[in-house]
Amino acid sequence: MPSPLPAADRLVCAVMAGGSGTRFWPLSRHHEPKQLLKFFGEKSLLRITMDRVAELCPPQRQLCVTAQRLVPAVQADLPDLGSNQIIGEPVARNTAPCMAIAAIVAQQMRPDAILVLLPADHFVADAARFRAALQVAAKQADTGKIVTLGVTPTAPETGYGYIEVGASLSKAEDGLFAVQRFVEKPDLATAQEYLVSGQYLWNAGVFVLRADTALRALDAHVPAVTSAFSEIRLSGLRPGSQAFAAALQVAFERSPSISIDYGVMEHESDISVVRLDAGWSDVGTWQSVVGLKPASSANFLHGPVIAQDCHDSVLISQGPLLAAVGLRHTAVVVTPDATLVLPLERSQDVRQIVAELQKLGRTDLL
Amino acid sequence: MPSPLPAADRLVCAVMAGGSGTRFWPLSRHHEPKQLLKFFGEKSLLRITMDRVAELCPPQRQLCVTAQRLVPAVQADLPDLGSNQIIGEPVARNTAPCMAIAAIVAQQMRPDAILVLLPADHFVADAARFRAALQVAAKQADTGKIVTLGVTPTAPETGYGYIEVGASLSKAEDGLFAVQRFVEKPDLATAQEYLVSGQYLWNAGVFVLRADTALRALDAHVPAVTSAFSEIRLSGLRPGSQAFAAALQVAFERSPSISIDYGVMEHESDISVVRLDAGWSDVGTWQSVVGLKPASSANFLHGPVIAQDCHDSVLISQGPLLAAVGLRHTAVVVTPDATLVLPLERSQDVRQIVAELQKLGRTDLL
Repeated sequence: MPSPLPAADRLVCAVMAGGSGTRFWPLSRHHEPKQLLKFFGEKSLLRITMDRVAELCPPQRQLCVTAQRLVPAVQADLPDLGSNQIIGEPVARNTAPCMAIAAIVAQQMRPDAILVLLPADHFVADAARFRAALQVAAKQADTGKIVTLGVTPTAPETGYGYIEVGASLSKAEDGLFAVQRFVEKPDLATAQEYLVSGQYLWNAGVFVLRADTALRALDAHVPAVTSAFSEIRLSGLRPGSQAFAAALQVAFERSPSISIDYGVMEHESDISVVRLDAGWSDVGTWQSVVGLKPASSANFLHGPVIAQDCHDSVLISQGPLLAAVGLRHTAVVVTPDATLVLPLERSQDVRQIVAELQKLGRTDLL
Repeated sequence: MPSPLPAADRLVCAVMAGGSGTRFWPLSRHHEPKQLLKFFGEKSLLRITMDRVAELCPPQRQLCVTAQRLVPAVQADLPDLGSNQIIGEPVARNTAPCMAIAAIVAQQMRPDAILVLLPADHFVADAARFRAALQVAAKQADTGKIVTLGVTPTAPETGYGYIEVGASLSKAEDGLFAVQRFVEKPDLATAQEYLVSGQYLWNAGVFVLRADTALRALDAHVPAVTSAFSEIRLSGLRPGSQAFAAALQVAFERSPSISIDYGVMEHESDISVVRLDAGWSDVGTWQSVVGLKPASSANFLHGPVIAQDCHDSVLISQGPLLAAVGLRHTAVVVTPDATLVLPLERSQDVRQIVAELQKLGRTDLL
């Protein structure tokens, strides 16, 4: 007899929405980073991420951890969340402090909370499968394990971290495995071996674990992080108050800057992974965006665009008419004050443009 | 002993500036066609054309024949010309009627005027050589001949008409020849034969002839044109008056629409041509523009552009910042309300974009 799933109302989804996303310039800007962009119609990536999990984890059990400067925009984007559900990081300290504050606040909501930590800016084609994977993960997390999601690779990607899978921990359809090891971004030859082997999954940056497990793991491996947050943890201060904001300022300033992967995952020996086959993308560059076009369309189009004989291109305008002829595998992104054109295989070079604009003092365009 | 040049003050330069220039969309618009565009810094092609001949033919002996709707813009562009030197065509009737009115007005200026008819929107690298060729042409024109300029081909262009040269009519350095025949735009194989033969020149659309020769030729070959203009010719009405404008309206409406080439040149048997080697281009498409970049530059750049690893491309912005990476032989033209991107070899397809905009009713962008 299968063991029952943990009560759904124990799930607290905390979305990490602090990224700056210069790789999507000129669409992404300092005050409108990637997670707030509306690539897919009327909703931002952040809003789509929240809506994707709402069936499992309705708005009253959602948290959003973002940069302080983005709080007003996030609040406008997520009107169903109260101001006590949106936490503005006073300074950027990578993701481990984010996990700490999310776990503390989740425990305030209920002490036996199971935390689902999600990046705000990924694409998932099949939301139902994604939720099913989260449910498998939550059940495993309820045993005290740290659980991550691993995406079945569809290409020898060199831009992702990988997870080597170990023993199967469930019946096949649940796709639950022990994590053998985490691997950093590989070179192309290694990525091709990984792809062929069937033993590696992409690290999707999704973590599912009980709030107490999270704090225990942080205490064990990055005590400087949890000690920075100890005042908030002990005081019971809740988001939305001035006292909380003041304590949060101190906590973030004191905390080291370290990621969940480096700070926690690499030091844990008993991590589980749930295999995810749901059409996932980290939407990392313009090149990855073209893969998200509808199958019926030759290009990824958004805004007023006339495309004649164009294929496999990203053609986006935020206002001015964009007319393109005869393009292949090219990105053209038009905004009222800046236009970007590059072959998609040069997508990484957006960073060079951003660096050049910084050098030129054109912060008005960043 | 060389025969003396005709008195310089007999030259009247009439620039034909009526073109609509959809091939340079989105830069060229209905109210700002190609000849008014500032490709090369602060001056329009029209202004550069006028300035190029000013040493031979100062502003007081210049005429500009343009579309009526463009008269204010042309007047602003050519502040040295009086309102009686700018003639607005009420309706477009191709170039033969333009030659008729230019000859009539030139004869008003002086009966023995030698007319230099020039397109407004061509590029000439070496203005001194161009003027020298005009002087050779004027001397030949003074004998009653119709003279045209022929450009030494530098590529097997299929977009130009050609002139087959006949007997030499001068010492070699003057480069004066009889015209054997005019040839329409050839196919590529034929253009390659022409290039190799050395017997063909590009038809630059420049005509030098006495005003009375012009009217005699028009009378002989397209009498419907000259008869349409007979009231103005006989009345002595001068540009700048309301009576002239009214008579011009009637004349253009009555005149057939026909070009100088079809209407006159094809029917004349004794035409001369002066060979021109001055770095000429008709600036016909975005593709031709890239050929006009400075030798020191990898690209033709205008406006606020950041180009990283781009070559042989046309990168123009009229305001928004244009950032381009890794482009080859590509045109990107950014204006505040429209952006065009195409491989340069697809330059002709700008017409399709313009047609599409017309179909969509987006005349605001045309």
